[in-house]
Amino acid sequence: MKSVNVAIIGSGVVGSAFINQLKNLKFPINLNVVYLAKNSKEALFSQDYKPVDLASYETAVTQPTLSLDELTKFLKASAKPSLLIDNTSNVAIADYYPTFIKEGISIATPNKKAFSSDLKTWNEIFSNSAAPGGGLVYHEATVGAALPIIGSLRDLVTTGDKVHKIEGILSGSLSFIFNTLSTSESSTTKFSDVVKTAKELGYLEPDPRDDLNGMDFARKVTILARIAGFEVESPTSFAVDSLVPKELEACATGVEFLEKLPNFDADFQKRKDDALAENKVLRYVGQVDFKANKVSVGIAKYDFDHPFASLKGSDNVVSIQTERYVNPLIIQGAGAGAEITAHGVLADALKIAERIAQ
Amino acid sequence: MKSVNVAIIGSGVVGSAFINQLKNLKFPINLNVVYLAKNSKEALFSQDYKPVDLASYETAVTQPTLSLDELTKFLKASAKPSLLIDNTSNVAIADYYPTFIKEGISIATPNKKAFSSDLKTWNEIFSNSAAPGGGLVYHEATVGAALPIIGSLRDLVTTGDKVHKIEGILSGSLSFIFNTLSTSESSTTKFSDVVKTAKELGYLEPDPRDDLNGMDFARKVTILARIAGFEVESPTSFAVDSLVPKELEACATGVEFLEKLPNFDADFQKRKDDALAENKVLRYVGQVDFKANKVSVGIAKYDFDHPFASLKGSDNVVSIQTERYVNPLIIQGAGAGAEITAHGVLADALKIAERIAQ
Repeated sequence: MKSVNVAIIGSGVVGSAFINQLKNLKFPINLNVVYLAKNSKEALFSQDYKPVDLASYETAVTQPTLSLDELTKFLKASAKPSLLIDNTSNVAIADYYPTFIKEGISIATPNKKAFSSDLKTWNEIFSNSAAPGGGLVYHEATVGAALPIIGSLRDLVTTGDKVHKIEGILSGSLSFIFNTLSTSESSTTKFSDVVKTAKELGYLEPDPRDDLNGMDFARKVTILARIAGFEVESPTSFAVDSLVPKELEACATGVEFLEKLPNFDADFQKRKDDALAENKVLRYVGQVDFKANKVSVGIAKYDFDHPFASLKGSDNVVSIQTERYVNPLIIQGAGAGAEITAHGVLADALKIAERIAQ
Repeated sequence: MKSVNVAIIGSGVVGSAFINQLKNLKFPINLNVVYLAKNSKEALFSQDYKPVDLASYETAVTQPTLSLDELTKFLKASAKPSLLIDNTSNVAIADYYPTFIKEGISIATPNKKAFSSDLKTWNEIFSNSAAPGGGLVYHEATVGAALPIIGSLRDLVTTGDKVHKIEGILSGSLSFIFNTLSTSESSTTKFSDVVKTAKELGYLEPDPRDDLNGMDFARKVTILARIAGFEVESPTSFAVDSLVPKELEACATGVEFLEKLPNFDADFQKRKDDALAENKVLRYVGQVDFKANKVSVGIAKYDFDHPFASLKGSDNVVSIQTERYVNPLIIQGAGAGAEITAHGVLADALKIAERIAQ
């Protein structure tokens, strides 16, 4: 049986779901886990590359984690090709991707950081990957979890299609908030109440402003834009319409923010009433518009029979209009959640294994 | 540069679009076209595997095509790995797939025939592929052209998700007919008129009954069911609700059929009126229902805000409900057309090349 050495970093919510799926995997290639960093301090590995027992990793005796330099050396010292799974959202690890890839270590990850920082890092990652001996990089789960967005977009571009416009609702929390707030029926649902409900349901970061400012969303739009050939310098280099009222940016805590948010409900009510008067609903979307030469994130209006208007719960959706897809290609479904994100990463890991295993 | 030998069969509508996309391809692997069968009689190739000039294939001097046995020998006699692109809907070629694959020749194709005939052929194809030295098989374009349906479904299954239900509108012609016929507004649009319009727009086979009988649709449902683990014996082994009225099955020609079809408009009008009274629209769908242990193709009713109700033009759509995707994963867009089908096949060809090139 062909095999590949696998190093896994992270055993949090996504990481442990990933390990569980990997443990139960039936696949014609052996994914030999030679290194498992449970967190930044504790890791499981042995110098002779014996497989880490995934059934007992939670309780097994650990060693200190290797530095990223040491991990690279450890993986390269084996005769087997190697694959790194980064199930963290750590910046330091992301910053090291160009080196991993240059050293021939392939990467599958849901960690957006490396792909949505400055354009230089993006270019370095993919030019290192294209160079002889470079590692492969698959990152489907960085946008919409396992939704087949990145792979489909890459297929379009590689086979010579021209992207005209990408529109998407790429935040589960903001999807929930707008799907609840703005419907085809007149509603007096208050923005602040919906934000509170989203918080209670666990859709929001500890400080809701970290979602409502649109920055995480902007990172995903940056990634899609770059794949489509729009050279976005950084997620702060285009217009992002924050949902955090200017006056509340200075609140010391998320709690204070939530207390004061009702003062702005009337503004949101007016915006959705205006939309409704035009037979439209409001949605918080990202847009990459090649004709207008513009990337943006913010509130937009959609007709009742537009696919974005009938979105349910916290689902994500992306619409890709191209030279070939005049009616857009639309991909919709849950864009977050541990199991789904983990399977997005695992599916990528298997595609890499199919290409590099020996 | 790594390379792979490519044999292409077919230069019809999809075939010529494929050749054109391939000609303009920029890709880090060399796809060396060593054999190009323009049709069942004429082919371009040379015994020393020199690349066929794709710029001049239409006018170049041809040789008689090789038999499938001869083609296999020709490809195997080269040191390079080889990939067959079958851009036909030919049964004889499809019947030969198990042999190609057993002989280590990989296949990318939009030809549904091999995957939707008897279950034995399906099992033979994939067991030969899994055996040591077996060729790879990618067939995304057999369902919904380039829509990322088959790849996504395989990823779900491989990573351990459990499919609960697949529903889909997988025929462009039947999508157009029902999207036009049955809308959320009361309408007296006649079934026979819509069928005629669909014919004029080129959506229908020369004899419209070849689409309206649902058999081509049933082949696609068979493929999705099998990938999801539902062992469908054949596309005739489950209920297919034909739209051809019993009384018109015996019409000698498509023309006669179209002449007599208006006699049945009242039946269809009643069905859509009944649906509208329930605030629903009619759609012609395929369903693979694991809970009900049932596969079927026929007319079903959907709420106005269901994604199937707002489908446009001749778009396809598939909805996949799983243990992980409680709200379904939905993929929607054009499911036919030469350019789109060709790019579905080309994207598969590139994935194969990435795995086998040397």
